[in-house]
Amino acid sequence: MPEASRKAARRRLAIAHGHLESIQRMLEDPDVYCVDVLKQLKAVQGALAGAAEVVLRGHLEAHVATAESRGDTSEIVNELMHALKYT
Amino acid sequence: MPEASRKAARRRLAIAHGHLESIQRMLEDPDVYCVDVLKQLKAVQGALAGAAEVVLRGHLEAHVATAESRGDTSEIVNELMHALKYT
Amino acid sequence: MPEASRKAARRRLAIAHGHLESIQRMLEDPDVYCVDVLKQLKAVQGALAGAAEVVLRGHLEAHVATAESRGDTSEIVNELMHALKYT
Amino acid sequence: MPEASRKAARRRLAIAHGHLESIQRMLEDPDVYCVDVLKQLKAVQGALAGAAEVVLRGHLEAHVATAESRGDTSEIVNELMHALKYT
Repeated sequence: MPEASRKAARRRLAIAHGHLESIQRMLEDPDVYCVDVLKQLKAVQGALAGAAEVVLRGHLEAHVATAESRGDTSEIVNELMHALKYT
Repeated sequence: MPEASRKAARRRLAIAHGHLESIQRMLEDPDVYCVDVLKQLKAVQGALAGAAEVVLRGHLEAHVATAESRGDTSEIVNELMHALKYT
Repeated sequence: MPEASRKAARRRLAIAHGHLESIQRMLEDPDVYCVDVLKQLKAVQGALAGAAEVVLRGHLEAHVATAESRGDTSEIVNELMHALKYT
Repeated sequence: MPEASRKAARRRLAIAHGHLESIQRMLEDPDVYCVDVLKQLKAVQGALAGAAEVVLRGHLEAHVATAESRGDTSEIVNELMHALKYT
């Protein structure tokens, strides 16, 4: 992974991690309200999507854009299409 | 939040939390491969979606299905539709 | 389905339908550019998501919020959770 | 767009188009059930996602994998990242 992408992904995951722990603390309260938890979960999912975007961009630049030069276009595209569907 | 939903959500978030920390450790390695990180991020996003599903189901049963009896259908539906779009 | 939801959903689907046909015409051109098609597909997906939102809101108001009064909360919530995951 | 991608995308959009028209006919019935419409909308969204996948794969192979050879990596990656977020 390009160094800049790795650093940006780490920063975003550190934020998602803190946010996730705050939701875990919310859920220790028996009177927590469902909709408040749903909103916070959406926010963490957004942070993870942001991290994934950073990683995808780095991958496209460093590994996909160079595939023809290396001669492994088919493998690299199959691998990425598979990863994007993975759930 | 219904007690069973709260417990189920906590279990799922504990799993997502451990998984997220393992991605953070992966990202300490300068040679980590982008696609491996993308796949793991997808898995954590799936775990969070599972937690959100548990919370949504509890909310529908405990608060939305009872809205007409309480007389606040419009407010409760607006609130939920807003939360589902929140990003 | 509530009458207002049905009318609003029809309007949104009519727009999505026209938009989809315009993408089909774009694809008759052998020189069409991939990214232009991707953007237009995203727009149609957004229109369909808008139609689904209208239908979901009508369903919550007309059928889910009244479930406790009718006594079928469990069935109605199961049915909706299943439909939201359906792909 | 690669010819094979264009043909595959056209086939998938023809299916989505027929499916969308059948939902429009469903919505002419005042007694249509919300959840039936939600399920059919999900199915059309799946078909459009399949078409987008075909187009994305063609784009990665034909235009992104060749970017370094052409010398426009930065532009091509920015353009794709933008298109993937477009809503």
